[in-house]
Amino acid sequence: MRHNRYFEDKVQSLGFTDADGDATVGVIEPGEYAFGTSRQESISVVAGTLWYRVPGKPWLSAGPGEGFEVPAGVTFEVKAEGPAAYLCRYR
Amino acid sequence: MRHNRYFEDKVQSLGFTDADGDATVGVIEPGEYAFGTSRQESISVVAGTLWYRVPGKPWLSAGPGEGFEVPAGVTFEVKAEGPAAYLCRYR
Repeated sequence: MRHNRYFEDKVQSLGFTDADGDATVGVIEPGEYAFGTSRQESISVVAGTLWYRVPGKPWLSAGPGEGFEVPAGVTFEVKAEGPAAYLCRYR
Repeated sequence: MRHNRYFEDKVQSLGFTDADGDATVGVIEPGEYAFGTSRQESISVVAGTLWYRVPGKPWLSAGPGEGFEVPAGVTFEVKAEGPAAYLCRYR
């Protein structure tokens, strides 16, 4: 299991690999962050509310059980007003 | 955010606190583990399949979107054949 830390530990995740491929579960503390993708990412919110902006689209929000797709090779932004937990699957 | 490690790092979690109280998201690598509870725990599976046994009940399994409650002050067991990710809320 991999423990990943970003943005002075305000975003952290635990990485694992299962039959569906590589995945992470993580927590985003309040703030706004930009990430680059090397693979397509499918992100589902597990707790809290996550705002996200993918290239060419406005800011949108997702709550528990909702999610969004991010293509490979782009930069996308997320922001959270309270802590948000997520599941990310890499395609 | 707290990073917790158990059982030689085979179970790890990230702890946070939101409007609903204390919570963790974590990953359980294949194996069988016993945990003691100090507070009531409400555990939801986020990815994979988690087998669990709480006192007085048989082994049961939960998949994504399913969960179970564990009372305070008991020891419960979990086992996973592949990695399983979960959300735990403390009551």
